[in-house]
This record gives sequence, structure tokens and C-alpha cells, in this order.
Amino acid sequence: MARSGRRPGESGARERIAESARAAFGEFGFDGATIRIIATGAGVDPALVHHYFGSKQRLFLSVMSLPFNAEFLKRQLLAPGLTGVGERLVRFFLGVWDEQPSVRPILTGIVRSAMTEPDAALLLRDFLGRQGLFQLVAAIAPDRAELRAVLVGSQLIGLAMARYIVGLEPLASADPEQLVASIGPAIERYLTGDLGAA
Amino acid sequence: MARSGRRPGESGARERIAESARAAFGEFGFDGATIRIIATGAGVDPALVHHYFGSKQRLFLSVMSLPFNAEFLKRQLLAPGLTGVGERLVRFFLGVWDEQPSVRPILTGIVRSAMTEPDAALLLRDFLGRQGLFQLVAAIAPDRAELRAVLVGSQLIGLAMARYIVGLEPLASADPEQLVASIGPAIERYLTGDLGAA
Repeated sequence: MARSGRRPGESGARERIAESARAAFGEFGFDGATIRIIATGAGVDPALVHHYFGSKQRLFLSVMSLPFNAEFLKRQLLAPGLTGVGERLVRFFLGVWDEQPSVRPILTGIVRSAMTEPDAALLLRDFLGRQGLFQLVAAIAPDRAELRAVLVGSQLIGLAMARYIVGLEPLASADPEQLVASIGPAIERYLTGDLGAA
Repeated sequence: MARSGRRPGESGARERIAESARAAFGEFGFDGATIRIIATGAGVDPALVHHYFGSKQRLFLSVMSLPFNAEFLKRQLLAPGLTGVGERLVRFFLGVWDEQPSVRPILTGIVRSAMTEPDAALLLRDFLGRQGLFQLVAAIAPDRAELRAVLVGSQLIGLAMARYIVGLEPLASADPEQLVASIGPAIERYLTGDLGAA
């Protein structure tokens, strides 16, 4: 049953389940990725998925973490100064999706799943909040940093959804530098500009 | 079985199924809204859903249409001239979600379902394309109208997802006029500004 004929419970099974779960959450979202699909992809019995990870919620939270260092990103984006920070952020964001094949199903899975699953919505809030974007924004513009962070986040999530998940043309096949030039200034305004009276 | 004790096949059943389907697609997305859930919500047998609407895909396409007149919207948004068109578009968009309770599950259902279901992605493309946004954009800026339309669409979809579906704060409870002032100028730049070299 296991791909390599190993006994279930062997050390490789846990990692195979995690890989299969990331792929399934990425492709089908939280609701569509059943334990059965995940178990089949890993070549194990569904009971073993529950044995290692408990509920589907816990499995999701265990395997969908982003290799993301907010402190490093902040230094890299801000080192050249504030000018162009919006363009650098869009370039970084597109680079993660376009060039890191292992991260893409995780991001897709988080965005897809956040639409229907409160735990996944929490992960998305973390990514935009304390763990990620908010840190960057607070370093740039402490006033109204939370509003700025979610405005930036809303544009980046909308971009990812249109380009990578729904495949809206001409956005899906646009050159990344075209998008950097088109969207970067909007992001920069959200980060540093006048947002209007509350 | 039917709520009012009417025989299935009677004229009210079809409309009850349509209403139940809109609510279910809105709440669970395409994948999560099963024929069983939809039938239960309408108080009919699942077979009757298939009898009236065929496959789930066909049911989705039949019931998820937007009462949306692109020509009227275009005149209304452009009558005061180009200045402020981004703010007026954001105000209109928020008004549809905030003030039209019957439309909200349809919009939510289209956005949620587009993440996993190609037919729903087609509906979203229609909304952004020939039927909707594209018409408005082409009237404003014929050059690069398709790119402009999807840029506007990506920000509006991201806004809807963050505010109405995922519930990201402080965006979810922000005053609509705050969002008009914050996001309107970004939309206006996508509609009329310099998007950078291709």
C-alpha cells in the first residue's frame, strides 16, 4: 500500500502525508482536500493521517507554514530607502509565487482555504499581521499601520487570486516587471501616502 | 417533505431550489455546496434538483447571475466627468455588498467558487470582462483597457475577499467612506494613469 512497501508508522510516512496534504490543500482548498485524497496521495491508510495529525484542521495548521523571515525581508526592502518600496514589495511577492515551486501550493492553499475555513483565515491574518506585512508597514509608517497593512494585503491577495488561482488574462501571463511598474506605485501609496480622513 | 406540503414538481419548487442553491454556493462555495445540502434547504428530494437543473455546474450557472446593467453603471459613474471616477466606483462596489442583501451571497459564491471551479472562474471573468468592468474601462481609456480592467478587478476582488469573506480587520469594519478615500485614488490611477512600460 505504501509506495515503497514500507510499513506504515515508519518515519517517511509522516513527511509523505505532509507533502500530500500541502499539494491537496493547494489544489482543492480546505473543504475539497479530503483525508482520503491526502492518504491516497501519500500511499497510506486514512487512519494513519489521523494518527499522526489528528483532525483535518490540525493537519492544515501543521503543514501550511511559510518559510518567511519578516525581519530579513524588512531589511532587504528598506535598505535602498523608502522610494520604490512598493515596487520592491511587488517584485518580491511575484518572485515567491513564480520562482519557488514548493511555496506556491502552500500560498494557494492558504488563500483558497481562507475563503471557507476560519482556521485558514487565521493563517492569512497572521501572514498579514504580526508575523509578516504589519511588521514591515509599522517600520515605514507607524501611523495607521494596521489599515495600511490590510490595504496592501488586499491588493496582493487580489493579484495572487487573479494571476495564479483564477488565471485572469492579461494578468496571468503579464511580464512580472509590467506588474511591478503598474501595481508598485499603488502599494507605495498605501504604505506612505495620504489615506484620506477616517 | 416540501415546506408547504406541495407536491414536488409544482412551480414553487424550482424557485425554492434556486434560492437554496444561491445561499449554499454563497456560504460553502462550489465544492462545499452539495446537491444534498441544496435539496434539504429547498425541502425537496435531491433527484428533483437534477431533474430541474441537470449537473451542479449547470445549476451554478443558472442561478448565479448578477442583476447588473453595465450601460447604466457606465453612464452613472462617468456623468460627473473623469475626476473622482475611482472613488465613485469603490462607493458603488461597497454599496452593492453592504446594501443589497440578495446580491451578497451571489457575489460571495462567485468569488469563493472561482477559486476551485473553472465554470465559476468564467463567470468572474465575464463580470470583469465584456459584460462589466471592461466596458467601463474601454469608455475611459481605450489604450490597454484589458490590463486596466484586470488591475481594477484584482483590487476590488481583494477588497471583497478581505472585508466580506475573510473578515480582516480593520478592513472588515472600516467606514465605507474611509475605504472610498483610501482605495479610490489607486483605482483611478489604474483607470487613467501611466501603468509603466510593458
